[in-house]
Formats: sequence, C-alpha cells, structure tokens
Amino acid sequence: MGKREIRIAEGQEVPFHNNVGFCVGTGRMGLALQQEYQEQLKLVQEEIGFTHIRGHGLFCDDMAVYHEYEKDGQIKTEYNYTYLDMVMDSYLKLGIRPFLELGFMPCKLASGEQTIFYWKGNTTPPKDYGKWADMVRRLLEHLMERYGADEAAGWPIEVWNEPNLPGFWEHADMQEYFKLFAATFRAVKETDERFQVGGPAVCGVRDEEWMRAFLDFCRKEKIKPDFITRHHYTTQLPENVGHYGYARLSEPEEGFANLQSTRDIIDSYEEFKGLGIHITEFNTSYIPNCPLHDTNENAAYIAHQLSRLGDMNESYSYWTFGDIFEEQGVPFTPFHGGFGLVANGCIPKPTFWTFAFFKRLQEYGGKCVYRDDNIVILEGNGYCGAAWNHRPQGRETLTLEIRLPAREKEYTLLCKTVDEDTCNPLKVWHDMGEPANPAKDQVKILRESAVPLVTSGQVQSADGAVRLELELKPYAVLWFSLTARRQTSDRGYDYARVSGGAMK
Amino acid sequence: MGKREIRIAEGQEVPFHNNVGFCVGTGRMGLALQQEYQEQLKLVQEEIGFTHIRGHGLFCDDMAVYHEYEKDGQIKTEYNYTYLDMVMDSYLKLGIRPFLELGFMPCKLASGEQTIFYWKGNTTPPKDYGKWADMVRRLLEHLMERYGADEAAGWPIEVWNEPNLPGFWEHADMQEYFKLFAATFRAVKETDERFQVGGPAVCGVRDEEWMRAFLDFCRKEKIKPDFITRHHYTTQLPENVGHYGYARLSEPEEGFANLQSTRDIIDSYEEFKGLGIHITEFNTSYIPNCPLHDTNENAAYIAHQLSRLGDMNESYSYWTFGDIFEEQGVPFTPFHGGFGLVANGCIPKPTFWTFAFFKRLQEYGGKCVYRDDNIVILEGNGYCGAAWNHRPQGRETLTLEIRLPAREKEYTLLCKTVDEDTCNPLKVWHDMGEPANPAKDQVKILRESAVPLVTSGQVQSADGAVRLELELKPYAVLWFSLTARRQTSDRGYDYARVSGGAMK
Amino acid sequence: MGKREIRIAEGQEVPFHNNVGFCVGTGRMGLALQQEYQEQLKLVQEEIGFTHIRGHGLFCDDMAVYHEYEKDGQIKTEYNYTYLDMVMDSYLKLGIRPFLELGFMPCKLASGEQTIFYWKGNTTPPKDYGKWADMVRRLLEHLMERYGADEAAGWPIEVWNEPNLPGFWEHADMQEYFKLFAATFRAVKETDERFQVGGPAVCGVRDEEWMRAFLDFCRKEKIKPDFITRHHYTTQLPENVGHYGYARLSEPEEGFANLQSTRDIIDSYEEFKGLGIHITEFNTSYIPNCPLHDTNENAAYIAHQLSRLGDMNESYSYWTFGDIFEEQGVPFTPFHGGFGLVANGCIPKPTFWTFAFFKRLQEYGGKCVYRDDNIVILEGNGYCGAAWNHRPQGRETLTLEIRLPAREKEYTLLCKTVDEDTCNPLKVWHDMGEPANPAKDQVKILRESAVPLVTSGQVQSADGAVRLELELKPYAVLWFSLTARRQTSDRGYDYARVSGGAMK
Amino acid sequence: MGKREIRIAEGQEVPFHNNVGFCVGTGRMGLALQQEYQEQLKLVQEEIGFTHIRGHGLFCDDMAVYHEYEKDGQIKTEYNYTYLDMVMDSYLKLGIRPFLELGFMPCKLASGEQTIFYWKGNTTPPKDYGKWADMVRRLLEHLMERYGADEAAGWPIEVWNEPNLPGFWEHADMQEYFKLFAATFRAVKETDERFQVGGPAVCGVRDEEWMRAFLDFCRKEKIKPDFITRHHYTTQLPENVGHYGYARLSEPEEGFANLQSTRDIIDSYEEFKGLGIHITEFNTSYIPNCPLHDTNENAAYIAHQLSRLGDMNESYSYWTFGDIFEEQGVPFTPFHGGFGLVANGCIPKPTFWTFAFFKRLQEYGGKCVYRDDNIVILEGNGYCGAAWNHRPQGRETLTLEIRLPAREKEYTLLCKTVDEDTCNPLKVWHDMGEPANPAKDQVKILRESAVPLVTSGQVQSADGAVRLELELKPYAVLWFSLTARRQTSDRGYDYARVSGGAMK
Repeated sequence: MGKREIRIAEGQEVPFHNNVGFCVGTGRMGLALQQEYQEQLKLVQEEIGFTHIRGHGLFCDDMAVYHEYEKDGQIKTEYNYTYLDMVMDSYLKLGIRPFLELGFMPCKLASGEQTIFYWKGNTTPPKDYGKWADMVRRLLEHLMERYGADEAAGWPIEVWNEPNLPGFWEHADMQEYFKLFAATFRAVKETDERFQVGGPAVCGVRDEEWMRAFLDFCRKEKIKPDFITRHHYTTQLPENVGHYGYARLSEPEEGFANLQSTRDIIDSYEEFKGLGIHITEFNTSYIPNCPLHDTNENAAYIAHQLSRLGDMNESYSYWTFGDIFEEQGVPFTPFHGGFGLVANGCIPKPTFWTFAFFKRLQEYGGKCVYRDDNIVILEGNGYCGAAWNHRPQGRETLTLEIRLPAREKEYTLLCKTVDEDTCNPLKVWHDMGEPANPAKDQVKILRESAVPLVTSGQVQSADGAVRLELELKPYAVLWFSLTARRQTSDRGYDYARVSGGAMK
Repeated sequence: MGKREIRIAEGQEVPFHNNVGFCVGTGRMGLALQQEYQEQLKLVQEEIGFTHIRGHGLFCDDMAVYHEYEKDGQIKTEYNYTYLDMVMDSYLKLGIRPFLELGFMPCKLASGEQTIFYWKGNTTPPKDYGKWADMVRRLLEHLMERYGADEAAGWPIEVWNEPNLPGFWEHADMQEYFKLFAATFRAVKETDERFQVGGPAVCGVRDEEWMRAFLDFCRKEKIKPDFITRHHYTTQLPENVGHYGYARLSEPEEGFANLQSTRDIIDSYEEFKGLGIHITEFNTSYIPNCPLHDTNENAAYIAHQLSRLGDMNESYSYWTFGDIFEEQGVPFTPFHGGFGLVANGCIPKPTFWTFAFFKRLQEYGGKCVYRDDNIVILEGNGYCGAAWNHRPQGRETLTLEIRLPAREKEYTLLCKTVDEDTCNPLKVWHDMGEPANPAKDQVKILRESAVPLVTSGQVQSADGAVRLELELKPYAVLWFSLTARRQTSDRGYDYARVSGGAMK
Repeated sequence: MGKREIRIAEGQEVPFHNNVGFCVGTGRMGLALQQEYQEQLKLVQEEIGFTHIRGHGLFCDDMAVYHEYEKDGQIKTEYNYTYLDMVMDSYLKLGIRPFLELGFMPCKLASGEQTIFYWKGNTTPPKDYGKWADMVRRLLEHLMERYGADEAAGWPIEVWNEPNLPGFWEHADMQEYFKLFAATFRAVKETDERFQVGGPAVCGVRDEEWMRAFLDFCRKEKIKPDFITRHHYTTQLPENVGHYGYARLSEPEEGFANLQSTRDIIDSYEEFKGLGIHITEFNTSYIPNCPLHDTNENAAYIAHQLSRLGDMNESYSYWTFGDIFEEQGVPFTPFHGGFGLVANGCIPKPTFWTFAFFKRLQEYGGKCVYRDDNIVILEGNGYCGAAWNHRPQGRETLTLEIRLPAREKEYTLLCKTVDEDTCNPLKVWHDMGEPANPAKDQVKILRESAVPLVTSGQVQSADGAVRLELELKPYAVLWFSLTARRQTSDRGYDYARVSGGAMK
Repeated sequence: MGKREIRIAEGQEVPFHNNVGFCVGTGRMGLALQQEYQEQLKLVQEEIGFTHIRGHGLFCDDMAVYHEYEKDGQIKTEYNYTYLDMVMDSYLKLGIRPFLELGFMPCKLASGEQTIFYWKGNTTPPKDYGKWADMVRRLLEHLMERYGADEAAGWPIEVWNEPNLPGFWEHADMQEYFKLFAATFRAVKETDERFQVGGPAVCGVRDEEWMRAFLDFCRKEKIKPDFITRHHYTTQLPENVGHYGYARLSEPEEGFANLQSTRDIIDSYEEFKGLGIHITEFNTSYIPNCPLHDTNENAAYIAHQLSRLGDMNESYSYWTFGDIFEEQGVPFTPFHGGFGLVANGCIPKPTFWTFAFFKRLQEYGGKCVYRDDNIVILEGNGYCGAAWNHRPQGRETLTLEIRLPAREKEYTLLCKTVDEDTCNPLKVWHDMGEPANPAKDQVKILRESAVPLVTSGQVQSADGAVRLELELKPYAVLWFSLTARRQTSDRGYDYARVSGGAMK
C-alpha cells in the first residue's frame, strides 16, 4: 500500500488556475430540444453548475434556420428561429449560456454533399460566402434582440469545428477555413464589436502546423482573434469490436506537452502573446462508444487533468455533459461508453463527481497551498481539497498523510468518496446483467448507487498543525474539507451517551 | 467476529406476517397544516409508502372544529371543517388515509381544565355526551360527503388515546372512558355501520387490568368492537438531563410477552376471540427527546421488532413519521431525539431505512423461507430479505453465511447497507459541532450522508444451492435481493476490459 | 339575431355516443422525445385527458429501432428500443397509452427509396416480409416484457397509414398493402391473441373501393380484423400562398354521408357486420399549414363534428394534440395553422376547449335529453351541456331559449364561453403584429388570452321547469351546467349587502 | 353613461410615486409555517412580486424563541430559532424579505397577562427591559450569522404594533411605549448601525397626539429614527352580524388628509424633516371578517388609493397578502371577508389584480404623463396605465376618451379587465350556494373565474396623436398598454382571410 507524506508550511502558496465551471460540451444543438437531454442538463446544473455550453450543429438542417425559396424567378433567403429560441430559452432557464460554435453548413447553403456522423452534418464550405455572412449577422441580431444586446454580446463565438480533419471540413482545406474564419470574424464584428470570436478549433492532428498557419494568416489579414481554441484528447487509437471502441489512456504528460506547444506558438507572435486558449473539447477518448468513459478510472484520470489544464489554458470544456448524443447513432444501452457525465436515465457517472468536486473548489475561493499529481489543497476558512488516485501502483490503495498549519483547536472533517466500491453504477449495471432497457426500479437502484459516500470526523490540532490521512483506493476521487469545529451542544445533550450503541 | 451459518432447505416455509406499511404515527393533526410536516411526509411516502396515518388532536382547538355561540339566550353549536379539510386533502394527495383517533376535547365541550403537553390538549370528559356524539356524527357525515361515503367509511376509528394514564384522561377514570367509548361507538355506527371502531388505546401501564375491564364492559353492553388497540414501547425509565431524556432499551422478549398477554386476554373471551389488535403506537422510547431515536442502534432494534410484531398483531404504527412534533415544545436542534423517521430539514434517520426495507419486503410478496432474530428471507422471483445486528456481541461484526436452494445458475445480488459507517447523519451532525441551525449546505451534506450504501455482486449457484455471506457491523440494517442474472451484453461490449482500470 | 326555442319533455332521451376522450393524434413518434411536445401533451392531459395517442413513424429511422450488421459474411438484425422506451415511458407517465400505428419502413428494411414529408419517412414495402414480421413480433414482445403483458396487449394496433395515397404507400398498391396487412396481422396474433388489430387506415380518396377490396381480401384470407379504421377531413382543396394553404370548410353533411357509406359497406358483409370503426384521424383541413385550425371557427365546426361522429364510429382521433409537428418542416411562427390543439409556447387554441368541454360531458355520464346541430344536453345530477354556433347566419348571435324539466327549486348555472371576443389568442397575436418569436411576456399574455370566460348565475324553476337562455356569438362554443343550488350561508353572511358595491 | 375626455399634451409630466411592490402584510409569523400560507404567498410572488413582508408575532410563543430555565437556583435564558429559520428560509426562497416588526411579548418575559386575538398575543411590556434588549440583540446576531450581515442589516425594523390602542399595548401607555422604543432602538444599533429602525406604528386613533409626543421624546432622547410608521384604514365602524362585520367605505380624501397631517407634523421638526413614512398597514376595513374585502368594489377603491399613497409616503403595505389569518379564529368559509389578496384555496380576489396591475406599472418605469382619480398613464416605450371606476355614478359605466401624443403610426393595445362581470369569484361562489367547503372541481372553477379578461386591438395614430377609449363598468379595474405595432407577417400569411370566419 502506497503511502506519501505531505507537509504544508505556514504561508505556503502555489499556483492553481481552476476554471472548471466555465464550459461544458453537448451533443448537437438539435438534441437540446429533447426532454431527456434537458433533464440530464438540469441534474448537471444543480450539482455542478457550468457557465457555458458548447456543441455542434447550430446551422444544421434539424435546427431549420436557413431557408431558400423562389420568388419572381429569384432565389431568396428566409430564416427560422423557432427551434433556436426553444434551445436558447431552455439553456438560460437552467442558468447556462451558449459558447456559440458556428457550423455546420445548411444543405441549401452548402457547396458540396459531404456529411459527418449518423446525423449527417454537412461539412463543406458555403456556396456563397456573402450568404454565410448574412446568416451569421442575422443570427446575432436575432439573439441580441431576443435576449438583450448586452447579454448576447457576451456569448463567446467559435468558428467551425476541427477543420484540420477532412471529415469535419472538406479536404481539411486550410486556406478555405481561413477564408471562412475571416468572413465570419468580420460579419460578427460588424454586428457588434463586443462579441468575442476565436478559432481555429483544431484537434491534435497536425495541430502545430495549423496553429502557426492560422496565426500567420491572422497577422497578414490584420485580424486579432479574441481567443484561440483547440481540443485535447488523451487516449490512443481505439480497437473496434461490435458497437464499441476500446482505447488505452495516454501518458498525461504527453498531452500537457502538446498543450504547452500551442501556448508557446501563440506566445511567439508579438501581437498574439498571452492570448487566452479555450480548450473547447476535452475528454479521455474521442469516441462516443468507449466504455472507459463510464468508469472510475476515467473519473480519476480527469481529476488529474483538471488539476493541470488551467496552467496554460483559460478554460477547458469536457465533451460532454450528457449521453443524449447521436454521432454514431442511438445507443443500445444506458452504459455504452458515451462521453456524458450523466448516463441515459439520469444516472451520474463517476466523472460527474470529479467535476462536482472541482466546482466546489472553484466556489471555495481562497488560495492554493499545495498541488501535486494526486491532490490539490486550498486554504480559505479552513481547508478544502480534492484528491485522486489515477495511476494506482499495482492496484494499491494510496495513503496521503497530510500536515497542515492549524489556526483552530479542532476541525470538522467532511469527506466524499467516489471509488469502485462506493460509487460505481457501471458495475451495478453489469452485475444486473447489463440490461439494455433497465426497468424503473433498476434505474432507481442505479441512481442510488451513483452517489459519493459521505463520511465525517473530528480532527484536533497539535503544535500548530493538523494531521489528516486520506486513503485513496484505486481510481478513487475524494473531496474533503476541514472547517473550524466549535461544539455547541444543546442543554443536556451528550452525544457520547448515544453513539456507538449501548446507551449508557 | 461473530459468524453464523444459515441453511434453508428446499420447500421450507415459515410464518411471517409483515404489515409494516399499514400505519404510521404523526404529531397532532394541527401540525399537518405545516409545510415542513408535509415535506417530511412526502419523503416518507415516496420512499416507504404507508397506507394510514394516526395521531392526536383532531378535536383540539387549533383544528377549530367545535364552536358554541349564543342566540336568543340559547347556546348553539356550529362546526368548522376548514382546517380539517386542508389536512385530509393533503393526506389523500400523498396517498395516505387517516386512522381517525377521536380526541382530545374542545375546550368549549370540556368538563374540566386539565391539559396535556406544550400544546395543551384538553383531556377531560365532555361536559355533555350528547354534544360529543353529535360532534362525532357530524364529523363523519362531513367526511363521507366530501370524500365519498365508500372511501370515508373505510377509515378506521379509535376512541381517545391512553386513557389508562391520568395525563391523557382525567384520573385515568376507567368507567368514564367506557362511557365515552360506548357513546362514541354508537354515534359512529348510527352514522354508517361500515365504520370500524376500536379501543381502548392503552399503553403498558396496568394494561392487563384495563384490557379485561374493557372487554367485560363491552360484553355487558353488547358492544362488539371491530378491533382492539394498544401501544408498545420498549425502553426503561429515562434519566432526564436538560432538554433530554436518556433511556436504555429493554429486553425485546419482555415486550413481546406483554403483547402476547393482550392477545391471550382477548382470546379468552368467546365473543372477542381472534379480534385483530392494532398497535396504534410503538417505538423504542416513549419520549420525544430521547437521543436514541436518531441512532443506528434504534434502526437495528426496530428491524428486530418489525420481524416479530406481526406475529400477534394486525398492524403496528411507528410513532412517528416525522419530527414536526411539539409535545415537549419546539426542538432546539434538528437531531434532538424526536420520534420521527425524518429529522427536521428532511433528513432521513437510520430507522427510516428499516421501514423502507421492510416495506420492500411487503411489496415483494412471495413466501417466507427463513426468519430468526437477525434476518428474514423471502422467496419470490429469486430471494429478498432484510438482516440486522441489533445486539452486537462486544461490538463485533456479525457474519451470516446463508445457503439457499437455487433455481438459477447465476444471481444478481443487490444490497443496501445502513450502519454507523455508511449512513449515520447523527454522527456527521455531531462532527459538525451539533449546529442548532445548520446552514443550507450543511443540511445538504447531512441529507447526502443519510442514504444507504448500495453494492452489488454476482453469485453463481453450485449443487442446486447459492451461498451468500452478509456482514453486519454493529447496529447494521441490510436489505438484499437475489434475482436471476442473465447477461445480455450488447454486441461488442466486454465489461472485463473496462473494469478495475488498466484498459486491456 | 337568431333565436330558437328548445323544449325538453320529462323523460325525454335521445342517443348520443360521446367517445371524445378515446384517442388523439400526434406528430411522428420521434418528436415525442422533445420537451416542448411533452409540455403540450401534459397541458392536454391535465385539461382534457385522452386515453390513447396515435401517430406515424414508430419504425422510422429517427426512432432507430431496426438495424442490420454483417457478421461472418451474413447480414444480421438487431433492435434498439432506447428511444421507443423513452417515448412509451413518457406517455404512460402522462396517463396516455399508444394506439400503435405500425409504420413507416426503416431504410434498411425498405424495398425502395420513396419518402414522404420533410422528415423523410420511407413509404415503400419491406424488402423482406419475414424480417418485417420479425420486427413486429419483437417489438410487441419487448413492450409486453417492459410494460406487462396485460397492459401492452390492450394497446390497439393499426397497420400503416393511408395506403390509398401514393405518397404514403408506393403506387398506392392495394394488393401490396393487403399483403402487408395479412403478414402483420398474423405476426401480431402469433405474439398474443389479445392484441386488437385493424386497418386499412384509408383517407377519403377512393375509400369505398378500398374498403370493399379490403373486406373482400379479409374474407378470402379468413382474417377477421378487430376493427376498421379510416380518416375524415372536411375541407376543400386548399389554395397555396407562401408557407400557407387556405381551405374552405365543406358542408358537414357531405362528410357524415361519406362516413355512413363506410358503415354501410362493412355492415353489408355478414362476418364483419357491426365491426367497430375507429376514425384514426380527423380534423377540418388535412394540411398542417392551414390558418383555419387556429380559429374560433374551427372550434365551433369541430364541436358540431363531436356531436355527430359517435353516431357511426367507435372513436375519432383529432389530428393532432399539439404543434410540434414537422411534416412540412419547422413552422416559422407560433400560429401557423398547425393541426394542434395547442400552439407552440403551450398556448391552447379555441378548439382545445371544444375538446375539454366534450370531455367534461363524457365524464358527466347521465343520459342525453336533447341534441341538435347547435347543442347537446345531458341530464345527470342536474344538467350539463355544450352549445356552439358553427354556421352563424350573417355573423349573427344565436340565442337558444331552453326549457328543461326541473326537480329542484333553484339551480346554479355555470358557463364557460369561448368565442372571438373572450378566447381568441390568434387575434391577440395578430394585434401584436404577428411576432414570429414572441417574447416571454408576450407568450404569457397569449396564454392568459386563451382561456374561457367563466360566468355564473342562479336560476329558479317554475311550474316544474327551468328556463335557460344561452347566447352564442358567431363561432362560440359554450359549456354549461345546472346543479341544484342550496344556499348554506355562514352565520351572519349576507351577500346582498356586499354585492354590486355601495355596501348597505 | 359617464364620459370624460382626457387630453395629454406633448412633453407633459406629472408626479407619481409608485412603490406598490415594497411591502405586503401577513398573518402572524407562526402561520408562515403553514403550507397553504406558503402556496398563497407563492402565487402572490409569481403574479405580483413584493420585496418585503411584515406581520405580527415574531416573539409570540408559537414561534418559541424565548425560553427560561432554572439552573443552580438561577433563572437563565435560552433562545430557539428553529421555527424562525423555517419562516425566514421560506420567505427568502420566494424572493421576499422580512420587514421585522418586533413584538409581541413572550409570556415568560411579559409583565402581565393581557392578550389580543384568538391566538392570544401577549401585549404587555417586558418584565425586564434588559432581557428584552438581549432578546433583540441575539435575534439580530442570529439573522446576520445565518443570512449574512449585509443581507440581514438591510431588513427594516419596526418597534411593536399600534401601541396607541389599549388592546395592542396595555393601557395604550405612551411613556411605556417610548421606553420600549428607546431600549429597542439602542439594542438594534448596538448590534449593527446599519439596521434601519422606525416607529411608532400607530393607527388612526389619537394619532396626531401620539406622533408629536413620539417625536418630542426622540428629540429629547437624541434618538433619530430612520423612518416613521403608521397605519391607514378607510372604512367606518362596522355593524356586526354573526361572524361578520359590515363597514362602509369612507370618503378617500378624509384618509389622505389624515396622512398629510402626519407628514406635516414630522416636517415641523427640524431634525426629522423629510423623514420617510412607511404605512406598515393599510386596507379598506380593519377587520378580517368584512365581506367588502372580497369584492370588486374593494379592488377599485384600492386602485384609487394606490394612485395616491405614494404622494406623501415612502411605502404602503396592504394588510394582507393571504387569508391564512387567525385574529378572529379560523374562518368557516373561503370567502369570509378576510384581508387577503388571495382566498383560501389559492383563489385570487379582485384586489389581487389591482396590485398586479400597479406592480406592472412600477416595473414599466418611464414617466407619468397623466394622473387623476380614475386613471394613471405612464409613457415609456409606448404607454402603459391603469384605470378604475371606484365611485360609479348611479352604477354607470364610465368611459374615458384619451388622446395621447403618438410617435408611432400604429399601436398594439392590450387590455386586462377586472370587473363584476369578468372576474368576480365571490359572485360565482355565491351562485354556487356559498359552500363552506367547496369540492375540488368547485375550487377549480372559482380559480378559473378569478382571472382578468384579456383583450387586444390595433390603434392607428392620426395627426400626431393616438386616441383610446376605455370603458369602465362599475368597480372595474383595468390595465392597458400601447406598444408600437409593426406587422411582420410570415410569407403568405393573411390574417384577413381567416379572421371572423367564412374563410375567403
């Protein structure tokens, strides 16, 4: 059993940029019309609470925004915001704002027929860039009118998605993307200067080449993007079997190094130095049928990611909040390796809690007094932290013995534990026989099995320090807090007489 | 560590009368107007689901039913059902029906000034039995009109509460009670023969004497009660300190013997032989400030009670479902030893889950294949049971090794565990410093700490039998089920590759 | 101003078969996943309450039920009920059951590429009738397993939709449809004999020819359908302008005559005589962009229909409950002439109340004492009725002077009025400027404008009769009730002193 | 039929201080624990939305705040905030804050036994002013700790209620009240200077004398209250019959003159000049059993009050929001002349809508362009106003012909009408026979009858002006708005073809 000692000195402070709550990913916008989608998002907002949401498909045909018709022998354009408004209304009702990704192409406006995914998003350039720009302008004007100019102008905008992949952008044609970016950037800024626009939304394929070319283009065109976007996935190539893809996790440092390279490239341009990077997608695997996503292992690995991603990035948006998602079709079972924090049936997965725990840290404020690859500790009114065991040595429990400066005589320790024994709905579902269509009472049990174990304790300080021992089973993720304890027993109340049975 | 082997033979069946869901107790009816009361009851109904609810105070002045006024020099009576209807409407909305206890005395109708409790229920006989009978008739007529005659006539009726205590009935005057009983019985039956009426609602003080005298009286008056009622508490005299009373649990067999004596007395009367007994109140301690009620010890002790009480009784109503209760005033803290299954703030106590588990057994149906002082096992479509460790030897864990006849090759084992480590909100609250007025986030954590740990497993049968090992820590209560497991993996899904980390 | 006298004699009774609550239509099943759809259905169920719901698209690709894959060089089939279960769960939660229409064709199972509607339902025969039958059997088995065999076997089944139109069934190929019907009928009955199966689901195009051919076929094949289905629309050909089609209402008697012909044809077959007819779709216009649907005129016309349709038919299902409906694409505006009883934004249209009123009559029970082309009156505990003015002479108000036998001295008259002045959200929306995307407060006002005006009165009887005068403005629909009034004023209450101001 | 012309000139502006949403009254604090109370308040907050709530009884025994016990022969004090927190939590959840009235006296702290009301609030001075001050300090400290110091310190505080009546304050002892005021003022300010404290909370009995004496006392003691409070009722002495009191409305100007006298008295003190006056209670009648409260007449009279009360007062708190109120006991019927805006059963009374309409004006902002005794008109983005007919001449309809400067060619007119014909639940209930305990479906109809009639229109401007005609039936209250109308018909939509029937 691994054991490590951690000793925090008085006044110690280390950097920790935690922006976990800034954004989360979603299945295509048309799916936001669905009731189950909304229920999953409601759960996510209640327990975690993200500020923004980003996904594909705003301009896809199921959103029905763009239309053409003939009149007097001429082709005219008309716009339909019926579904768009339903989606935006529902987001705002749940306290979340869109991070607008502009794409994909309405079929009527498309130059080609290439599509991506089960849901057939058209991924070809516009047949007419003027019409594209008009569609963008009209969209933003509509949003500003309906939701208020100040409100809407605060919604970040990203141009397209992963143009460096031929599936997402015909031929992965770089110059064509830059053309799209410039046209879009200008259309947006003409509408209202306050809108913040970014790109190039690339994933980790030829990303350095794309990043440099993009910045060169911007320099040449005298465009200053408001931020840079890219994606971040950390598994190797999956092995496909039946409906599923099995992928191993990568060495985390490889991913961080890749992200650092983006940071360095940007900073090498005088005019773009320090420009914020939004990771508009990240997860372990990049396929929506990778069983890994449903595991405690994923939860622990992501905890480690969350402790580091803020080092070089403004934000990082987990792909995705829920499992209403159809890129490879409709899943056959509730646990199918979907990207979501929540499985269909509104069952939180272990990774859901990783986000809940880091969001609690973000709200906690205070300063970071310690951070390593297994733990982060904040000091505020007491202490608060998260710990994880994402790389258990030989499946061993890791024990952290922590010594913290104490200002109080006594502390209340609260702890929430998510590990394979305490919060593992995937295992419960497997033990049930992996039912494709679990009955109502099975879903109830699955939800009940999907919550952290809450424990508590009292910790006395001694010699100006308080000692804490955290046990992390393999793939455990923990949230804990230490707050000053002042016992204020009611008159006559004696806990010692009633605890542990055998009333004295 | 204690260990016991349990071996169930093919075809084995033992008696087990489980009517746990029939009735639950409540604070006085006027409190049912409160929002927190209703929220606690809602939680209870959602997770447990009782059929009836019984408490005091229907005729108390806060319900404002009975009024007198003068007209032309004469005293007239008028009735007000405004609050009564609000209460009944709210009960029926939550799927629960009243078990009507007729009492206490409206001040205007009272013959004296003796009151009981902080809320001052008048406990003297009516000044006019004719007016009492009229009040009863008019009440029932009103209920039949509003809720339908068939519906209301199915609500059981009990006459008064614990007349064998001088506090509840002036001088504990036996003959006066019998007079009340007879007058009430007749008023009810005149209204509608279908109403079921019972008494004498005594607690365990001179109860044998009262029971015999009551039945003698009924025989003499040719009254045949529809059922007999009594109460059942199982602690010794409390020691009072400040706001609290500390009481030790009694030996369970003493209580069962006492209940058996009631059964025997009734059965000794030819005309009353076999008449059903409703225990219209039971709990461990009979005071609403006994810290024991909030403990896991209480939960385990009550589990034992629930496994036995049906042996001689028709039903048994836990006193009470929630902690909105004012007999000794308004509690200063959420955990204050109240009777409730739920603490204020809608926090389930361990005993809440004992009831939830036994209610699941009641719904499960099937036959009982085994019962002893630590476990009860039903066979239906698989097996289902509850186990508890209410008398741990030296605070040891008790292990039950169970061998059951198997019809299936493989079973899914589901288990919910409530013990001092997994579901102990009292301890968490104590560790918090026993806050009298916990903040919103403290209440949230307390609720999260108050749920069973759900675990699962797969069990293979061998030689026509399936073996199960249940570990019961001190004061643990467990629910478990074994159901046929048929793995129906989706195409390509391989749980072994994703479980336990290190994706293969 | 038109005026008519109606005099009901003591003991009078006339036939009136009112099954308005049996079934309602819906947009394709895939849309039932949407949140707005569910909210509209919830409103409909709360205020009206239908028993069954029927629509297209169960087997369409957006429901993702049917799949093929290759294994070892062979094509295999697999089924996915993820979305189907979500839909069925949501229906049952709202207290409504499916009237299963089996169709259209999964692309993978289709023999051709013909599709219908914006949402591209494939309307070609199966490429393999064996696979079709297997899909049907597996579907029903799944439903019986999930929802209980007794429950699911009670859900009516209809084979396909309007095969007499070439758009809905390739070439409107009669023999091919009969083949489909027979294959489906047998597959269903093999699964469970209790399922009730019907067809041929034709609309009013060559319907007599189809009906006869269908029954001839059944006779020859010795198939006895459990019921016959057809559709019923009552407008003339629309004139198309922009997104809209303008259609005039037909003379009602033409439609009733057409329905009678179906009745007569069936009854001319010895073995099918008396077989129930379910009108599985009806409305005024058969296009989802006919502004008429949103008007009070529609409400009044449909009231007339509802008073007559039960004469020859078992049930009649209004097409459709709500405006989440995409046959011609996504509507640009909330009022767009959609079929729905409810406009997007959960705004009830006038016709919504026609259904609510007739549903109240259905619940009322009693006997029908009078029915003509403007009114139907039931007698139960008092009287209850609906009246309408669907064909106002010169836009005049119609006054009905009604004389009813009285058993009571005094009655309470309650009346709900829906007409162009009291409940006309379309006009309010038009007065607002016809906003395509009304703001939140506009939607609130629209909803507030979309409720009936409730009025009341006291009516004294004289000479054993009670007289009632109902004023029906053009296109008015009224619900009214007369119930015995017994004033039970509280002590000292004198309404006369406070009514009409100027406190006396 | 009365008719008046109103002509508003370009640029016209008149004063109108509308603070209708600042505060509303409530039954005693202990009743806030009730569910029906909370449901009524929820309805009020959703449709009207008040900022503060004020009522009696914070320190009354049912709130259980103050306790004494003996220890070592000494009397000690302890505080219980269990119920207080439930109430405050529930208020804040509904978006409303307390306007804290400190009173009445806990029995244990009282110097005498005088009580007021059915619920027996003790109205005697404290037996010990030190203990009173301690109780106040501890209360505020508790509130600051629980709800945040900044939040709680913003809650206004009033000392006692109507000490000028002997029922509310023993002997109406002026000097004793001043002593209480000074002790309380100092205790509050010691706790936190930011708290705003006011008095003397008198009603209109010897009010001038009290006001002067109070200000003289403050001057002498060098106390500067943060605001002055008084009450305002506008009926004559009621005539009592049975449970009811019938009272005639006073001439409004008498009341306004009385309020002006308070204003003048305050302004005559140099150091108190301009001090804000909060009317912490107002209504027509001051008894909770005056049938007038339930009428349209009340609604219209209050509309007039709301158009004037801001002229000399900071705020004015209607007594009360709902009918859970027990000063004279529990009402026998839903309509019983209670103070509430909402009758029991969550039925809005006509006066509810008067408040809703004036709250809409408050939110509208803009400037007031016209105000007289029947109408107030605001100009913002268009126009918005309220009109009423509180003193109909001979029960005639009053017609207002209004001419307003127009900036737009065309306006949408929206209008909500509450009068005896359109929104009069009291009449519907009377027509039902005045049921004491209306059944569920009766309550539903009552609620449906209790909403304004919504109508709309289009108004064209001419010669730079827009003309509007408002018809006010006796006791009518109207809300109306004129907003620029720009018709944006969808392609092909022609309302003229579908409106008014007879599709063209």
